[in-house]
Amino acid sequence: MVNRSDVHYFGAGPAPLPTAVLEKASQVLLNYKDKGIGLCEISHRSPEANEILADTKQALSTLLDIPDDYDILFLQSGGSGEFSATVYNLVSVWVEKKRAEIANEVGDNKDEVLKRLRKVVDEELKLDYLVTGSWSKKASEEAARLVGSKHVNVALDARKANDGKFGKIPPESEWNLTPRKNGGPAFVYFCDNETVDGVEFPAFPKSLEGEDAPLVCADMSSNFISRKVDVRKYAIIFGGAQKNIGNTGIAIVIIRKSLLPPQSQHASPELLRELNLPVGPIVLDYPTIAKNNSLYNTLPIFDVWVAGQVMAGLVNTYGIKRIGGQEEISNEKARLIYGALDKYPDVYRVVPDKSVRSRMNICFRVHGGDADKEKAFLAGAEKKGLLGLKGHRSVGGIRASNYNAVSLEGAKRLVAYLEEYATA
Amino acid sequence: MVNRSDVHYFGAGPAPLPTAVLEKASQVLLNYKDKGIGLCEISHRSPEANEILADTKQALSTLLDIPDDYDILFLQSGGSGEFSATVYNLVSVWVEKKRAEIANEVGDNKDEVLKRLRKVVDEELKLDYLVTGSWSKKASEEAARLVGSKHVNVALDARKANDGKFGKIPPESEWNLTPRKNGGPAFVYFCDNETVDGVEFPAFPKSLEGEDAPLVCADMSSNFISRKVDVRKYAIIFGGAQKNIGNTGIAIVIIRKSLLPPQSQHASPELLRELNLPVGPIVLDYPTIAKNNSLYNTLPIFDVWVAGQVMAGLVNTYGIKRIGGQEEISNEKARLIYGALDKYPDVYRVVPDKSVRSRMNICFRVHGGDADKEKAFLAGAEKKGLLGLKGHRSVGGIRASNYNAVSLEGAKRLVAYLEEYATA
Ligand SMILES: Cc1ncc(COP(=O)(O)O)c(C=O)c1O
Ligand SMILES: Cc1ncc(COP(=O)(O)O)c(C=O)c1O
Repeated sequence: MVNRSDVHYFGAGPAPLPTAVLEKASQVLLNYKDKGIGLCEISHRSPEANEILADTKQALSTLLDIPDDYDILFLQSGGSGEFSATVYNLVSVWVEKKRAEIANEVGDNKDEVLKRLRKVVDEELKLDYLVTGSWSKKASEEAARLVGSKHVNVALDARKANDGKFGKIPPESEWNLTPRKNGGPAFVYFCDNETVDGVEFPAFPKSLEGEDAPLVCADMSSNFISRKVDVRKYAIIFGGAQKNIGNTGIAIVIIRKSLLPPQSQHASPELLRELNLPVGPIVLDYPTIAKNNSLYNTLPIFDVWVAGQVMAGLVNTYGIKRIGGQEEISNEKARLIYGALDKYPDVYRVVPDKSVRSRMNICFRVHGGDADKEKAFLAGAEKKGLLGLKGHRSVGGIRASNYNAVSLEGAKRLVAYLEEYATA
Repeated sequence: MVNRSDVHYFGAGPAPLPTAVLEKASQVLLNYKDKGIGLCEISHRSPEANEILADTKQALSTLLDIPDDYDILFLQSGGSGEFSATVYNLVSVWVEKKRAEIANEVGDNKDEVLKRLRKVVDEELKLDYLVTGSWSKKASEEAARLVGSKHVNVALDARKANDGKFGKIPPESEWNLTPRKNGGPAFVYFCDNETVDGVEFPAFPKSLEGEDAPLVCADMSSNFISRKVDVRKYAIIFGGAQKNIGNTGIAIVIIRKSLLPPQSQHASPELLRELNLPVGPIVLDYPTIAKNNSLYNTLPIFDVWVAGQVMAGLVNTYGIKRIGGQEEISNEKARLIYGALDKYPDVYRVVPDKSVRSRMNICFRVHGGDADKEKAFLAGAEKKGLLGLKGHRSVGGIRASNYNAVSLEGAKRLVAYLEEYATA
């Protein structure tokens, strides 16, 4: 029998959760607030569920200092469903904006509007993707599947500058963003932290800022609430919950309200079909989800509650520092682990370039990636209760995921093992 | 403090779960199989997760006697996401079949194929919906949103024969199914049990059987695993888990393998766009989900485990009778409750027609729907620990949901209260 306290778990997601939250969860599963029924049984339309939703949103707003002109949505999409949802929704906004502009010019003539709109879509619709790792690559592929590859501009393929492998982010001067003068792209997409490749954007890209900045859409699935974020710079931030936030089962979307009705209209399904553009399922339609306070259909309230507890824990722990407090700890843990790896260059090699090393997913090889040695390294770690260190099946090697629920003590234990292994 | 044992919960979904399952759940949340990590933390690609998936599929196959030529999929779509998924996938199969037929005739000439295919889609693509309540109505509306209303044939609108209200299913001779001679509809869709309106199909419709029967797609969200089902009659059976099966968070799809590759090809996204048909998100693409054993992306394994435990419980309880055993109990509970309602016609009125009364959602009015009296009825029930009896907000009244986890004792308690209230 292995106890939780015997183990430090570095899985990449699903990932560790605070034991205190799980202990409370195991109670509310059976009986929530002494109602005689559990939290997985309770109606998503009950006052209790509404309170959980409100509290969770409040905690997230507090942590990330989310401005009033942003909305927070919960969906059952997983992270991957948001690859699609961002495309459906932002293309829809773009199309409707163009349609309105054209209708303004040519008036009521529907055929003429459609004709011109077709041309505009054909010539101008561009979704810009910064491909810096496996997940942004996947997102760009889904975009191409949905709208056709001619509309997807891979503004950066980071492999090109790095021997066909992810691990670097070339300078912004080398990116091929759709020029702003033609109205720019419908949006620019990037993955803030690449879970598989251990590549994290060190800061918000300068070229996505400024007066006529494009809409920016960022996947923060694996570094959500791990550092300060200037939410105003993003049109959409999304993340699956199962790394820093909570359980698999919900994704969280932070979206600028100007992209939702009444401020922004979305194109009708008929129009999208006419233009050979995809129509998404209603469960991924942000206006519908927003209008219904994420209760368009049954929402897994238990998963929202877990996220809310995790967030409330951070608010309580770090007080006025909020996510800044967590950022300091995350940085410190990452510093310790990378420090140990860098100390033994003959034994360990960190995979990504120093400039883009992820604080969340620390990817390295042991003895140049020797299969037997890496296996032995993992077996030794497991003996010490250091679990979940195997790299993603697509790249191999070792990956220590350093999410919020990994304690400083856990990081130190790993460091001790890294030292011990290297000097054995 | 109210204990679970003080309460009988008749909520329509999320719905009660067996206490024994929740007690086990509250343990595995903290530590699964003594690994030192909990079931929400464990990797969906771990051997443990694979075992849970396999066991859950096995239990479901055993219960419903699912033939080998059917696959079982788990998605995070919710019930509503399947309204869309069924359309995307079955339209895709239909289109590809037509395309192949035409290509067979006219050969390599792509433009000619496309021209003819456009005509065939325009004239022949029909999705038949039997609208017998709020959920099939919603599904038909989603279909119309996705493919355009001209392609959606509401073969039955049950309100028309019943003063504009749901509550009856007119005889099959009055249904307007798309004739089989023109190839028939792409599929026929119905909702086996209408949760809001308390209308359940008493049996599989005769007109959907036979040699050249159409593909049949059924929503069993609210009566899944509550009676015997001849799976072979269906192309697709789906259900959200949060009523008879488990937690909100997964939907289960039972699908005929002949609708999946390699037996059936799906149309390419390009072709669908060309034909002004919708392209669905990859997370709702059945071939992708099937190919990856439901692990295309992170699956909420905890929710699969809960479903598996619920199903294993039924297998153990009912032994060789399998779901037949549960069906007997379900029928008995429903018989008792309807019996008590029918006994006091001056006090209670069952909403739907006798011939289609749901065994799962028992909808009735108290004193002709007098608002104050229904409120008093609900308050009295609550005092006795009979919870979750309020009707759906769209129709009002009372609804006693009689899912599998409602015990015979719970049904009897409700019956006692019905008697007491009527005779007070
Ligand atoms: C950065 C990132 N984005 C998206 C995803 C996909 O999330 P999901 O598995 O919930 O679809 C992952 C999963 O690991 C991820 O790490
Ligand atoms: C019969 C039926 N179908 C579909 C749904 C929709 O399910 P979900 O809320 O998971 O989207 C429900 C929800 O209650 C239902 O009762």
